[in-house]
Amino acid sequence: MRNFVIKGNLCYSESVDAVRLLPESYLVVENGTCAGIFNELPEKYQVWPIEDFGDKLIIPGITDLHVHAPQFSFRGLGMDMELLDWLNTYTFPEESKYRDMEYAERAYDSFVKHLRRSATTRAAVFATIHVPATTMLMEKMEKSGLVSCIGKVNMNRNSPDYLCETSVEAALEDTERWICETKDRFGNTYPIVTPRFIPTCTDDLMHGLRKLVEKYKVPVQSHLSENYGEIAWVKELCPDSKCYGDAYDRYGLFGGDHKCIMAHCVHSCDEEMELMKKNGVYIAHSPLSNSNLASGVAPISKYLKNGLNVGLASDVAGGDSENMFLSIGHALRASKLRWRLLDQEVKPLTVDQAFYTATLGGGSFFGKVGSFENGYEFDAIVLDDSELDHPQELTLRARFERALYLSDDRQIAAKFVRGERLF
Amino acid sequence: MRNFVIKGNLCYSESVDAVRLLPESYLVVENGTCAGIFNELPEKYQVWPIEDFGDKLIIPGITDLHVHAPQFSFRGLGMDMELLDWLNTYTFPEESKYRDMEYAERAYDSFVKHLRRSATTRAAVFATIHVPATTMLMEKMEKSGLVSCIGKVNMNRNSPDYLCETSVEAALEDTERWICETKDRFGNTYPIVTPRFIPTCTDDLMHGLRKLVEKYKVPVQSHLSENYGEIAWVKELCPDSKCYGDAYDRYGLFGGDHKCIMAHCVHSCDEEMELMKKNGVYIAHSPLSNSNLASGVAPISKYLKNGLNVGLASDVAGGDSENMFLSIGHALRASKLRWRLLDQEVKPLTVDQAFYTATLGGGSFFGKVGSFENGYEFDAIVLDDSELDHPQELTLRARFERALYLSDDRQIAAKFVRGERLF
Repeated sequence: MRNFVIKGNLCYSESVDAVRLLPESYLVVENGTCAGIFNELPEKYQVWPIEDFGDKLIIPGITDLHVHAPQFSFRGLGMDMELLDWLNTYTFPEESKYRDMEYAERAYDSFVKHLRRSATTRAAVFATIHVPATTMLMEKMEKSGLVSCIGKVNMNRNSPDYLCETSVEAALEDTERWICETKDRFGNTYPIVTPRFIPTCTDDLMHGLRKLVEKYKVPVQSHLSENYGEIAWVKELCPDSKCYGDAYDRYGLFGGDHKCIMAHCVHSCDEEMELMKKNGVYIAHSPLSNSNLASGVAPISKYLKNGLNVGLASDVAGGDSENMFLSIGHALRASKLRWRLLDQEVKPLTVDQAFYTATLGGGSFFGKVGSFENGYEFDAIVLDDSELDHPQELTLRARFERALYLSDDRQIAAKFVRGERLF
Repeated sequence: MRNFVIKGNLCYSESVDAVRLLPESYLVVENGTCAGIFNELPEKYQVWPIEDFGDKLIIPGITDLHVHAPQFSFRGLGMDMELLDWLNTYTFPEESKYRDMEYAERAYDSFVKHLRRSATTRAAVFATIHVPATTMLMEKMEKSGLVSCIGKVNMNRNSPDYLCETSVEAALEDTERWICETKDRFGNTYPIVTPRFIPTCTDDLMHGLRKLVEKYKVPVQSHLSENYGEIAWVKELCPDSKCYGDAYDRYGLFGGDHKCIMAHCVHSCDEEMELMKKNGVYIAHSPLSNSNLASGVAPISKYLKNGLNVGLASDVAGGDSENMFLSIGHALRASKLRWRLLDQEVKPLTVDQAFYTATLGGGSFFGKVGSFENGYEFDAIVLDDSELDHPQELTLRARFERALYLSDDRQIAAKFVRGERLF
């Protein structure tokens, strides 16, 4: 039964720059999809089940557009290095443990449990190179009720022996078998082709992955222009490319005929920006990670102004928490520091823009997701802000803004994904 | 009865740059003061009450060296402006409400309740210009068991009519009466002279406050070099001063013969830095606030290297939360962005340095506070990190680091101030 009505204070993005706030309104959900918002409930819906959330806030579910499931185990640890050293010192050793299915089971149980309890309803997830553990993660995510794309990672060079696909053929065979086994198996969980990033993938691996993208119509996710050392390295590895993004594009792994997420884009040049726009690439903005690893701050308001697709991301464990409210707050702060310290041409993000990236901006990667407008899949978070106490009456606008800055999972009173109630 | 022994994993700063980690150790507390740490408990203490906190982490209580109690009511709101506009638009109207004792009662109850539950054991607090509400706040803080300095604010120019002390004489009389009434009244709560900042205080008010500092041997707190517009304004108002800090010093309100806290110091020049060092001024580093209001990032590792006194601060409501763990995490992130975006001469903070500022750095303002070494007053937070789950064994070092990044009040299993257990 997915026909019902909910009532509460509805808050969702009507555009990149503006939030619509509808106090004490009815939202009709028909077959899991938003089918109308009303001040007074029309008679035809009055026989439908109605859940009245009273004075609570109801926002679209949040999309975490870039998160590393196997890194959840070391969130909040080892962020005293920049990207490339951090990968070698902390990340690769941890990811190698996922060849052990017992370890993977414990670790992914913890990840999925926390994600289910969080504000995240949709996620684009990196797993590891290991097919069995990746498939297990997909099974667990499917059970959670969340919607996700999950990627078996590919990496076959500049990687430690204990975490490296030594044969390109075997890597591509593994990946193809995994895609075939998982692509129609689940209701809410999909495979996504996931080359780690250019420094760890040879040309022939990348060309092979492109063929899989074409053959199976699957999306792509990777990393782009996160860190100066990384960018210089890609320039060495791909001397003919005009920029890092162009190098992906030459492999056919940069959107255009397929959906594509590129995490970070902290230091993208104008050419890269144009290419992302042309190809409809999704930027997964990961502000906590980009600060923790001293990468910098992506010029998000510029990307938004130029019409690029931007979603927000935790990037656990470069980011230290799965709580996407922390990413919203930090996206705002980081954009202000960028403006103050580096470049007053790029304006700080507004609260409305940050909220947009967390909901509709990233949600649209999954289709009509991230809004309460008619036709959008009904993903929602019900926020009880009563513990965020205050001595005076607050407007709905003020409550909305406070809730974004101050919420954690204690404020989440209910969660819906595709019209199903998770709790 | 304040003689007892606690057992657990002790973590405290042994210097600015290093944390000492003592697994499964006994800490003897004699008359509220740390009196020895042992692997094996000496026989003479074995008859004392022992509380065994098992595998939990025990850290010194945290000092919030700068927090505005009346602004707690609008934490997480209205951070879309820089300092001077923010004061006029959000802060001053809110602070004017504290003339109403009913409002003040509701608001301060909320503030004190949250602070008591938080990791903060000591605080330097701004109230408002209103004596009755300030005294009420002191009564509530005293009841909470926390230790604090609380300031009735002085401001008599460039302030809206509804929040301005129009007569200098009355302002000084009010302040003196309030100091006399409160300075010996409480066990844990002390008055602190609190000119808001130079732009809102005339010369004669400042000279009068200096006399009160001398006469009653009370400390001073104010704001310094937070924002470019503010600094330029002070230069206009005090054209003879060499710098903003020098202007305070010429009033005799910048340490030396009295204890003094200056919040922010984001843009302090070398001369100001030297003067702070000479006078033993405490810098209240407020990283969340300095990002939220786009002020910038103070060069904290440089201040520490130069031997200045630095404590950490929430600066609610420029900072959006009283949770000092968020300030620790953000101090680290902001220092990395400062390094990346502005100035690679000033190194990012380390976890150990950030922890130092939150404990011993700010605690020393209150005396022998912020450490478990012999002779230090026993303020402590017991952290239960079991809900921060993970699939593998973690070292004590890793658990300590994670707990700083990921904790909120849910992790606080027990709290002690001056040897008294609050919960």
